[in-house]
Amino acid sequence: MAESAGPDPAVVLAELVGGERVASDPDTLARFSRDHWPLAILLEGAGRPADRPACVVRPRHAGDVAAVLRWASETGVWVIPYGGGSGVCGGAGGVRGAVVLDLRSLGRILEPDRDALLVRAEAGVLWADLERQLTERGFTTGHYPQSIDLATVGGLVATGSSGQFSTGYGSIEDRVAGLEVVLADGTVLDLPDRAPRRAVGPELMRLFIGSEGVLGVITAASLRVLPLPASRSVYSHAFPRWEAGVEAIRRVLQAGWRPVLTRLYDPLDAARSFPEHAPPGRAVMLWASEGPAERVRAEREAVDALSRDLGATELGPDPVVHWLEHRNDVQLWYDALAMGVLVDTIEVAANWGRVDALYAAVRAAIEGVAGVFYVACHASHAYPQGTSLYFTLAARPAEPDPDGIETLYYGVWEAAMEACVAAGGTISHHHGVGRVRRRWVAAELGPGLDVLRRVKQVLDPRGILNPGVLLP
Amino acid sequence: MAESAGPDPAVVLAELVGGERVASDPDTLARFSRDHWPLAILLEGAGRPADRPACVVRPRHAGDVAAVLRWASETGVWVIPYGGGSGVCGGAGGVRGAVVLDLRSLGRILEPDRDALLVRAEAGVLWADLERQLTERGFTTGHYPQSIDLATVGGLVATGSSGQFSTGYGSIEDRVAGLEVVLADGTVLDLPDRAPRRAVGPELMRLFIGSEGVLGVITAASLRVLPLPASRSVYSHAFPRWEAGVEAIRRVLQAGWRPVLTRLYDPLDAARSFPEHAPPGRAVMLWASEGPAERVRAEREAVDALSRDLGATELGPDPVVHWLEHRNDVQLWYDALAMGVLVDTIEVAANWGRVDALYAAVRAAIEGVAGVFYVACHASHAYPQGTSLYFTLAARPAEPDPDGIETLYYGVWEAAMEACVAAGGTISHHHGVGRVRRRWVAAELGPGLDVLRRVKQVLDPRGILNPGVLLP
Repeated sequence: MAESAGPDPAVVLAELVGGERVASDPDTLARFSRDHWPLAILLEGAGRPADRPACVVRPRHAGDVAAVLRWASETGVWVIPYGGGSGVCGGAGGVRGAVVLDLRSLGRILEPDRDALLVRAEAGVLWADLERQLTERGFTTGHYPQSIDLATVGGLVATGSSGQFSTGYGSIEDRVAGLEVVLADGTVLDLPDRAPRRAVGPELMRLFIGSEGVLGVITAASLRVLPLPASRSVYSHAFPRWEAGVEAIRRVLQAGWRPVLTRLYDPLDAARSFPEHAPPGRAVMLWASEGPAERVRAEREAVDALSRDLGATELGPDPVVHWLEHRNDVQLWYDALAMGVLVDTIEVAANWGRVDALYAAVRAAIEGVAGVFYVACHASHAYPQGTSLYFTLAARPAEPDPDGIETLYYGVWEAAMEACVAAGGTISHHHGVGRVRRRWVAAELGPGLDVLRRVKQVLDPRGILNPGVLLP
Repeated sequence: MAESAGPDPAVVLAELVGGERVASDPDTLARFSRDHWPLAILLEGAGRPADRPACVVRPRHAGDVAAVLRWASETGVWVIPYGGGSGVCGGAGGVRGAVVLDLRSLGRILEPDRDALLVRAEAGVLWADLERQLTERGFTTGHYPQSIDLATVGGLVATGSSGQFSTGYGSIEDRVAGLEVVLADGTVLDLPDRAPRRAVGPELMRLFIGSEGVLGVITAASLRVLPLPASRSVYSHAFPRWEAGVEAIRRVLQAGWRPVLTRLYDPLDAARSFPEHAPPGRAVMLWASEGPAERVRAEREAVDALSRDLGATELGPDPVVHWLEHRNDVQLWYDALAMGVLVDTIEVAANWGRVDALYAAVRAAIEGVAGVFYVACHASHAYPQGTSLYFTLAARPAEPDPDGIETLYYGVWEAAMEACVAAGGTISHHHGVGRVRRRWVAAELGPGLDVLRRVKQVLDPRGILNPGVLLP
């Protein structure tokens, strides 16, 4: 075990970064022992809490992070980078004896560069705070993940996040223009935003986007922003069948339109999400167009026409308005977990041509697991090449004890992942791998996994960074 | 020297892949001893030809490439991946005793996936052939580099290419959905296109885009295609000053419009490129909008209005039509080089706010080199965050011998690169590093260069792949 090799990390680190920056009281250790991983929450409720770290360090700047990592690389102590803790795949927490870096302490936002539409923020800034500050100045990131109120800049970069308007504005890789990353040996890597594009070797920033903390610790990011759009139009349709809605998204995007929001709910998800608006048995599509008014108008007319061709009827703006108001409410989720019910989400993706089969296969696979009583789906991040599918499920373990919970949880995930791989989809669209998807990374990456391991080996030779995450 | 370590590579490789796939006659060795690097062409003309490789291998498939690389990794013989040879920075050729892989032998194109808008092509396919085949089927890649008639799929991926319509369609990284890469140890890495986006670790494809053959050999790519646009509008303006044109591009893009073509010529470049259309002393801007007709119309009206606000006058479609017909003519270039005149292009980029200073600084720096008699510039790849600047220069060496040529060539590049770094620009927008820019990679990447070296170390521990390129 890494922690048995030397003296108490809390004592050593207090000398390195100051005693007031290091905590090892039980409440703090408990708080940083897990993120929003449903399995960890359920197990905690059933009396099997997550492993506690040794201590929690709140760095003041990249220099503090570098000092901690240098020491950890020398001693072999594990280090867990921890952002907002909103991850749902077990990517942060739960390693006995590890040092947790509570990166919320890196909270500065610089004034945006109004010429180049860039803003620099430290890793611990909550994305919602960044967005609020930008909105006051007439800008937006265009990136609105459901976790926006909880998640940090660093966390959203490290996990490869997508926002709800990704169809128009892209995902986190389209927002990041520069990164500051601290490597395991303490090197502070400033990957600058000095041009919008370059051809000077492979773009190294991409090594850290989606790296889930195993290749380095992100301490700041330079992000592309947009002027607040000149106009917005929200509209919605009911489709006779889910597959007709899927086809509508494909036709709209392949015709060259880019609604910022394309969000299709299957009948069950629609009934739950829009009880007042969804016609029974229909799929419901939410759209939003943003930008110059003339383009928004033309786009909406084109989308309406393409949708009508596929049998859609207009539902007006109300379902979108309702969704915009309630889109980030997750209280029901906590309530259910507190009652011992597994509620979880599994997002996958595929190219058009495989989407319908992926939908049917994953849905059937989850429904086939004993204890599952609800499976619904929406398609919320679309591309000319394909779309994501976002399954929401609820299930009750046969036995409410830790073993029963694990059996149910891994049963659901194994069924969904195996069905996804067999149907030719990708195992994660934007939640990342964390701990739960590790087993299927080899199926996804093939020999690429070995490349990832080799990169890990040279960037973190002692393997101190976020053990147990991403790499099987 | 690598080649002195063992038996004749041509003999060994004939056994590995078949004698008819290996050539070592003088003409073939000469042909593959350089690419379109102006320095190498001039030196050849002055009696100092590039170093010859030991032999040239034409692989049938990734398996042949793997066999060659495995043998090379065992013996330490250098391997040069060679595509169309259209590079202008010395990225392919000129290593005595090396084995050249003539990848033009990998020439298959699969039928496009019409649902997902993807096409798979082997590395040696000429991009123009791919584009022709797609056009017949109603599709396009949207990627039109000036080198389209000479450059291969693999070469354009490996060098980080941009096309002339990149403002609308993005650069090569936006086209690539999957890659097949052979590593130095012979591993065939299939990085698949099974979804339009995923969050399963860092996107490994990005390691090889722009890697200039030093991390692996690209043998095939899956590329995103587009339906041929429903409509196109081409138009142009004269701006009273270059800086006003720069400002017009910024305003158009930051307002959310995406003309596929934004191409601004300074007065000197305009006079050379459009002798019949360019008003004296004015900057000339070419625009094209593509897509659904309603959007194209709205975009053109908005661009016209924004341009008029900045003092522009309309020049109509003729300059764009002229450019479309002549854009890839480079005969003059060859003629000049054959006469011992250095004609070269240097592309850099910066964020808005630094563009005007970068333009002035690089221009003045090149003009200040003894022997330079022409410097002109256009801005041809733009983003909401900034733009590229593409300098064309002509110069005559004080002495027409190899030493005089080298003095002039490196004098020009040193002046341009130092000015670019000082002005906060990136040293290459889309031509890559090759041999000529190696000295400034450290200034560009900082400690990132060490990361790149570490990745090189684990992927190619004996350093067999494309020595002397990219890495200083």
